[in-house]
Amino acid sequence: MQETDAYKKYADALIAEGLFLPTGVKGVFGFNAHFQQIIDHLEALITRIGKPLNPEVVRFPPVWSRAHYGCTDHLRTFPNLLGSVHSFTGDDAQHNTLLQKFEKKEDWGAGLLSTDLVLTPAACYPLYPTAKGTLPEGGRTVDISNYVFRHEPSDDPARMQIFRMHEFVRLGTPTEALAHRDDWLQRGLELLLSLGLNCAAVVANDPFFGKANRLMKATQKEQELKYEIVCPICSDENPTAITSSNYHLDHFSLTFDIKTSDGHIAHTACIGFGIERITLALFKTHGLNSNKWPEKVRKILVLP
Amino acid sequence: MQETDAYKKYADALIAEGLFLPTGVKGVFGFNAHFQQIIDHLEALITRIGKPLNPEVVRFPPVWSRAHYGCTDHLRTFPNLLGSVHSFTGDDAQHNTLLQKFEKKEDWGAGLLSTDLVLTPAACYPLYPTAKGTLPEGGRTVDISNYVFRHEPSDDPARMQIFRMHEFVRLGTPTEALAHRDDWLQRGLELLLSLGLNCAAVVANDPFFGKANRLMKATQKEQELKYEIVCPICSDENPTAITSSNYHLDHFSLTFDIKTSDGHIAHTACIGFGIERITLALFKTHGLNSNKWPEKVRKILVLP
Repeated sequence: MQETDAYKKYADALIAEGLFLPTGVKGVFGFNAHFQQIIDHLEALITRIGKPLNPEVVRFPPVWSRAHYGCTDHLRTFPNLLGSVHSFTGDDAQHNTLLQKFEKKEDWGAGLLSTDLVLTPAACYPLYPTAKGTLPEGGRTVDISNYVFRHEPSDDPARMQIFRMHEFVRLGTPTEALAHRDDWLQRGLELLLSLGLNCAAVVANDPFFGKANRLMKATQKEQELKYEIVCPICSDENPTAITSSNYHLDHFSLTFDIKTSDGHIAHTACIGFGIERITLALFKTHGLNSNKWPEKVRKILVLP
Repeated sequence: MQETDAYKKYADALIAEGLFLPTGVKGVFGFNAHFQQIIDHLEALITRIGKPLNPEVVRFPPVWSRAHYGCTDHLRTFPNLLGSVHSFTGDDAQHNTLLQKFEKKEDWGAGLLSTDLVLTPAACYPLYPTAKGTLPEGGRTVDISNYVFRHEPSDDPARMQIFRMHEFVRLGTPTEALAHRDDWLQRGLELLLSLGLNCAAVVANDPFFGKANRLMKATQKEQELKYEIVCPICSDENPTAITSSNYHLDHFSLTFDIKTSDGHIAHTACIGFGIERITLALFKTHGLNSNKWPEKVRKILVLP
């Protein structure tokens, strides 16, 4: 209850300040120039931090192949978060039926057909099918930033249904993947602390769906495969994950047949910066007027 | 047939050069650093061109409220282009049923439920419900750039299912809206000609769906409500619309109750630059290596 109040209070403040434009749907907002400016400068900062590693830059759109989606275990583990894209492919008569449903305020969406697309569930997913085959010697390091979708309507302004995830992904040997995860966890934490955010790294697990997947949460945590960098936004007791760093072992490489240059199955790891969440943490921590943020923070973000 | 060959040839060249990463779905591609750099510089250029008008900057995500969508006539006029977002909201037992469908390779998407969201059909649509009420004196000019979705799988690399649309929208009196449309048509044409694109402005109509809407095409053309700036990409005979400039009369203002400061129903107009299409026109016109583009073009785009 108290948290719900805190969510509402922060969302209302963001709306009153004009930073958020409500769309009438929970967790979906427009942004004004001020909010968007922080997003843009944060994206540029994260790109700069990664530059010394000389990553390839790859960008994917907010939708992804349903066939590739079906190769992952997302439908098994996070069906509730999925965004499946449907459309109308009928003729004039079927169109009339659709419009009649609509007029009667029935669920007109139910008659639509599945397209070849789903909304991208995580920024790095679309990369793996394109990496099928043998990696170059030394593997690959990739800078990715995409919109990702999670169907979890919430009053928490930091828990959006669609948001930008800026990732650095490593594909290589187990040693290379694990080192990437650990180095980036440190690098990410230093970056976020330098921005004045009161954050910390914690072992975490994904919110796997249903009873059948309960064991996966425990195993993931026990094996320390996932770390999150958490920061209080609307609650000190339940800080928000603003970044996460994951070691996938051979999970994606087995699915999409990715091998190291010496013919072994590859391992992968990634760090993902939640751009809107970090932006919301900055506004919460330093106030709703970025002109008044600490000079040090403004300088790191290269705000004009 | 010849055009299909030309589509394939250009798409293959883009893939061979690494500019496009195929996703296995028609009209959905990843981009490499080189392609993305042109997109970023083009977006910045368009923002600069609009700066003297001192527009508000507003950004919306790739998804939009289903309820607001239902207020428009999109389902009546372009149902075939719609992207409706569906998800799973059931329990463990229903999840099992879903997975069984999936295992049997049935259309598992058919069992999902409509969410509160659709993919954004046009960049300016999400703006109108937020503008409900009375406009300030002199109206509003808004700089918008969003992803938009159109379910039209095509072999034409310039006809993507999801792409960026950078718009300048005017909400005001009929005179203000019409002047915006005409001024921007001129400004847009000059900009695109300055980039060395062999383009021209033509009266156009939207591809309204079905027999019932045939008359709308003719009326729209007759009233000269829509202009497109077209440029040959894969075909000289059928150049591609890379920008469009529209006068909506009171269409959106009646739907979303937008009034001028003196209490009349507002009129709206917009120009929309198709970012990926312009980028593809540039690569087609000047070659696949932007380092070798004409110095004048590189300078206007501020390429490093």
